[in-house]
Amino acid sequence: MRPDPLRCADRVGRLRSTFPETDALLILNSKNIRYLTGFTGGDGALMVGRDWLTLLVDGRYLTQARAEAGDAEILEFRRRAEGIVETARRHAAGSVGFESSVLSVEEYLKLREALPEGSLRPLPDTFQLLRAVKDDDEVDRIREAARIAGEALAAVRGMIRAGVREREIALELEYRMRRGGAERVAFETIVAAGANSALPHATPGNREIADGDFVKIDFGAVCDGYHSDETCTFAVGRVDERRRDVYGLVREAHDRAIRAIRPGVSCGEIDRTARSFLAEAGLGDAFAHGTGHGVGLDVHEMPRLAAGREEKLRAGMVVTVEPGVYLPGHWGVRIEDTVLVTEGGAEILTPTSKDLTIIRSRARRPARGSQKQGGA
Amino acid sequence: MRPDPLRCADRVGRLRSTFPETDALLILNSKNIRYLTGFTGGDGALMVGRDWLTLLVDGRYLTQARAEAGDAEILEFRRRAEGIVETARRHAAGSVGFESSVLSVEEYLKLREALPEGSLRPLPDTFQLLRAVKDDDEVDRIREAARIAGEALAAVRGMIRAGVREREIALELEYRMRRGGAERVAFETIVAAGANSALPHATPGNREIADGDFVKIDFGAVCDGYHSDETCTFAVGRVDERRRDVYGLVREAHDRAIRAIRPGVSCGEIDRTARSFLAEAGLGDAFAHGTGHGVGLDVHEMPRLAAGREEKLRAGMVVTVEPGVYLPGHWGVRIEDTVLVTEGGAEILTPTSKDLTIIRSRARRPARGSQKQGGA
Repeated sequence: MRPDPLRCADRVGRLRSTFPETDALLILNSKNIRYLTGFTGGDGALMVGRDWLTLLVDGRYLTQARAEAGDAEILEFRRRAEGIVETARRHAAGSVGFESSVLSVEEYLKLREALPEGSLRPLPDTFQLLRAVKDDDEVDRIREAARIAGEALAAVRGMIRAGVREREIALELEYRMRRGGAERVAFETIVAAGANSALPHATPGNREIADGDFVKIDFGAVCDGYHSDETCTFAVGRVDERRRDVYGLVREAHDRAIRAIRPGVSCGEIDRTARSFLAEAGLGDAFAHGTGHGVGLDVHEMPRLAAGREEKLRAGMVVTVEPGVYLPGHWGVRIEDTVLVTEGGAEILTPTSKDLTIIRSRARRPARGSQKQGGA
Repeated sequence: MRPDPLRCADRVGRLRSTFPETDALLILNSKNIRYLTGFTGGDGALMVGRDWLTLLVDGRYLTQARAEAGDAEILEFRRRAEGIVETARRHAAGSVGFESSVLSVEEYLKLREALPEGSLRPLPDTFQLLRAVKDDDEVDRIREAARIAGEALAAVRGMIRAGVREREIALELEYRMRRGGAERVAFETIVAAGANSALPHATPGNREIADGDFVKIDFGAVCDGYHSDETCTFAVGRVDERRRDVYGLVREAHDRAIRAIRPGVSCGEIDRTARSFLAEAGLGDAFAHGTGHGVGLDVHEMPRLAAGREEKLRAGMVVTVEPGVYLPGHWGVRIEDTVLVTEGGAEILTPTSKDLTIIRSRARRPARGSQKQGGA
């Protein structure tokens, strides 16, 4: 489904008015291009002038661009930098703002050589907040993605038991998300059991789940371009007291962070809420990543809920809250929800309960391999 | 499976000897880092000095880097640019070569500010050929990926008939590849029927296959990090003479290009072989992309088989050959194999026959929707 053309026009207008002193903005991030025009292809360049809008694509995407981005002038390029230079010249753009985190040095040097000195200007970091506040349609899509993902997890929940391999669960979960209506999966699903759960970004491998394992599942779906992101950590079989305690501490850090969310609070403050709680419990070093990030057309986007981030939360932002504790060589716990910032606080969009779930099932077969280690 | 540490040492040695006048090389492309060290995580930086090798990662990847990249010194960074600057200073590197197509302007400006003037030097384009010639282990993995993908296509072949939706076929094909041993799919599978087949990069949607359609399927698997890439175009039901002719012309362009492959021939010459043949048939404008590209740890890598590319083919390179003809609003044909350059010519690694296959099956249900257009 294409975004409403009026919404695109509104977004372009908002962008133009944010940078009134720049003659043209050069947009290369494909998700930003989609947000502003509806074009879903790759490898293009969007130029936003004061009273003009030009989408540059190569021959592969010409038909698609005309169909999807009706409000923009569509031009074909053979070399992207040349198309950008020609368009800037045609409109006599004396200043061109660009996404410095996206433009490569290679293309930058080509543009700098061809355009008047000083005309290329990195857009400020605040530009990256362009898509941070979602409208109702966007929230509906994230909500739908989260629903599809949650139903898929519920459907494969019975597979999580001793003797089953990580990758079998990951594959079935992804298949179910797509059968359930996801246009794709949001990212490569993580299913990490035992010692692998101590790797924040483990790749699902041939390790069999064993009695006593934590099984960390980080998964998401995509609906009309919008992502969901959720992590559940299940306990299989016996759970010793230490694991139970740490799960409870991570859960409390997660809950406190969500309770702290409301418009006007800084992103760094949410991170501090979760981090200081775990640090007081002696687990500060074991929480080796930020507390969360924005979710939308990208699964990781602005804002970041991390130490020192001054941006203020606003109603309509959608962010993850995902504290974790990782004990290398042993095990780890992460608990993650995708959350909408509302006028009154926060609404959790991901549907799965984050209470400690202990799966007491019989193994698929005698758990001979229960001491087996191994990764991807 | 990790690459053999000796192979990694050999690759690092080859890289060092290619740039004897540069004190240090800064590698940011994650596939290049994997190729040189075995580290499979994201977001790192590898610095290759004359007699030192340092892998910089953030906290999320520390455990994984130590396990996978045993031959490198592993350092943790909080901000990547700071880690790079510290490492360059510690080794008094007066010149640092970098991948200009990978480094962002944002990070470049930080590095330029902190390092001595003139020390940052873009690596020449030839650097991108680093991974172009594959060793036997790499070819085996690509061959295995192609085998898995081909078997999956054979398994879903019976689904390709009138009344079935594009996305249903894409989903089952991807599921079969992964059940068959692919660690992931090489890229989002394209299944494009009817008018969608005229879009080179269509996304599978809800369009139902209709009698008389071409169905273009572009798919690949990943095995131990290595990709395969193959496109088959099937005819469903009646095939008019024009379609039959165009299929035959694309097939002939494909065959001629493969017959032209041997060590010493330039990449541009292979492209010219396919392109001039289609141009003489009046279809030059309808072939709107290059003839092929390298395949390996990335599904698109060097070399490119495109107009004007002077690089010479070498034995051990693995490339696609994929001419196509696209008639916007009507239909399209692409025929693609992944091919190994051998001493004597070329060996096709992708297993599916590229003879015109006409699928004469009954529709799943009465083909009411056969005139229905529609995309993703």
